[in-house]
Amino acid sequence: MSQNTRRVLALAGGVGGAKLALGLSAVLPAEALTVAVNTADDFEHLGLSISPDLDTVMYTLSGLANPETGWGRRDESWNTMAALEQLGGETWFRLGDKDLATHIERTRRLRAGETLSAVTRDLAQRLGIKCTVVPMTDSAVRTVVTADQGDLAFQDWFVRLRCEPAVRRVRFAGADKARANPALLDMAGLRGVIFCPSNPFVSVAPILAIPGVRMTLQQTRVPRVAVTPIVGGQAIKGPAAKMLAELGHDVSALGVARYYKGLIDGFVLDQADASLKAEIEGLGIKVHVADTMMHTDDDKRRLAAATLEFVDALARSLQHS
Amino acid sequence: MSQNTRRVLALAGGVGGAKLALGLSAVLPAEALTVAVNTADDFEHLGLSISPDLDTVMYTLSGLANPETGWGRRDESWNTMAALEQLGGETWFRLGDKDLATHIERTRRLRAGETLSAVTRDLAQRLGIKCTVVPMTDSAVRTVVTADQGDLAFQDWFVRLRCEPAVRRVRFAGADKARANPALLDMAGLRGVIFCPSNPFVSVAPILAIPGVRMTLQQTRVPRVAVTPIVGGQAIKGPAAKMLAELGHDVSALGVARYYKGLIDGFVLDQADASLKAEIEGLGIKVHVADTMMHTDDDKRRLAAATLEFVDALARSLQHS
Repeated sequence: MSQNTRRVLALAGGVGGAKLALGLSAVLPAEALTVAVNTADDFEHLGLSISPDLDTVMYTLSGLANPETGWGRRDESWNTMAALEQLGGETWFRLGDKDLATHIERTRRLRAGETLSAVTRDLAQRLGIKCTVVPMTDSAVRTVVTADQGDLAFQDWFVRLRCEPAVRRVRFAGADKARANPALLDMAGLRGVIFCPSNPFVSVAPILAIPGVRMTLQQTRVPRVAVTPIVGGQAIKGPAAKMLAELGHDVSALGVARYYKGLIDGFVLDQADASLKAEIEGLGIKVHVADTMMHTDDDKRRLAAATLEFVDALARSLQHS
Repeated sequence: MSQNTRRVLALAGGVGGAKLALGLSAVLPAEALTVAVNTADDFEHLGLSISPDLDTVMYTLSGLANPETGWGRRDESWNTMAALEQLGGETWFRLGDKDLATHIERTRRLRAGETLSAVTRDLAQRLGIKCTVVPMTDSAVRTVVTADQGDLAFQDWFVRLRCEPAVRRVRFAGADKARANPALLDMAGLRGVIFCPSNPFVSVAPILAIPGVRMTLQQTRVPRVAVTPIVGGQAIKGPAAKMLAELGHDVSALGVARYYKGLIDGFVLDQADASLKAEIEGLGIKVHVADTMMHTDDDKRRLAAATLEFVDALARSLQHS
């Protein structure tokens, strides 16, 4: 099998992960990309089973994503929400009219006994996605954020409270009993594993918390590369920087690299943070410096291609080590 | 209490019933009108608890009804349905984006343990409805249509199969164990009971099938008036005429009057059917001839006022009998 058709496994959360996944899907053959997506911020809301990260990845890969928000669908309308508000319903979690169809169809099929991975496969196919998108697990895993006022369900903290309460601890209820998607446990023949630029604590950590995943990633000889979600000490999107601080880490790409130590061979550092290169390499992690900001589709393709080149270079050096 | 503030109880199904209810709400003080609505064509669809007749009545009374279809909301959009179709979901039962909010909110509250009457009261209030709207029962009653090919759930027959299969029998699963809304059992002080021009077999019959309702209506001294749903041998809307024929009744207002014999004191006959007056009076039912077609809001008010006058005239003659 040629290098180009060997499979890449990408671990992704929402917006940032989806962007790199889109870049990877543009430079890889469809059969060579599996995106394993965090489902620990899934929740039941308005009676619907909502999988925010899966949807963001699917909408992004199918070109349906809203480019302004990163989440939800483009050309969206909000008539159901407006009517729900009139009826006194809960509207703090904004669900667009088109987006609602995804939740309605997913919920119906899950209730009928289908697995989340089966439903995801079909939805992705209906949306015209050619690569493979899998939930990290079919089991229910739920992120719980411990703040000063007590435990908060993830979306309560993330959306309703706008990430405001300081985070003392994050745990993943149900993770210990969850079964990982097989794609996360089978490293045979993989070209590489890519940690997308997603929040380490609430997007990647839940994937790692599923029994077998961390150990598989620790033990594999397949090159593992993380793309930084932190540039210039700030999260590109979301609360990653705030959480680094609150959880006692260095608020920088270095803090992220330290968090992933033992799990990654390489780290894609933004050019703005090139000064951190030596310190990260001091952790035994190879560093590739690139422009990691993904504003355009071209940016995404370029970063994906650079990351894959880095993966392949690491593979060569791992073979020689 | 003056005649005008004594309470009227209207029994209603969907479109036809809602129209007369709107007329009644325009000519009666809010506290003097209770509309008891059929819930036997309620169903679970796409994971949502849908109450078509309650919604038609609520949307009509609040001025939100779609004047073209009679069901659903005006100025509606269909973006969720279009997206659902793309995802391979079920779209034979059309749910508009605004309408969906009603089903989502109702479903959420029912699942949380609230009764349908409590949810209906709040939704009606949110929609600005001043009179009282109650479901015929809080229990699950479901119309089952027996056709040649076997039993069909009501909406399967009504919407999906467009009423095409010939009806051999209609039954109301769960009716025998249902508890009637108290408004259907308490005739004390009522000015009158009005059977709205709804389908006798699938809108009014389910209400009568709830334990106690038929007997209460049979035994009361309160004047009871039915407004014909059949004009010139045709249903104003829906399959009432087809069902009269298939169930072996005369396909006319006379067939309806015979079906209601023992339950009504008066029958509002359309002027087009004036020739049936003597035959209906032969059943021991008083007849008032009127223009029963309700095209405009003015028509609705006029028919409502005429029906109330007829109710009051019957009350006087019942007192003297």
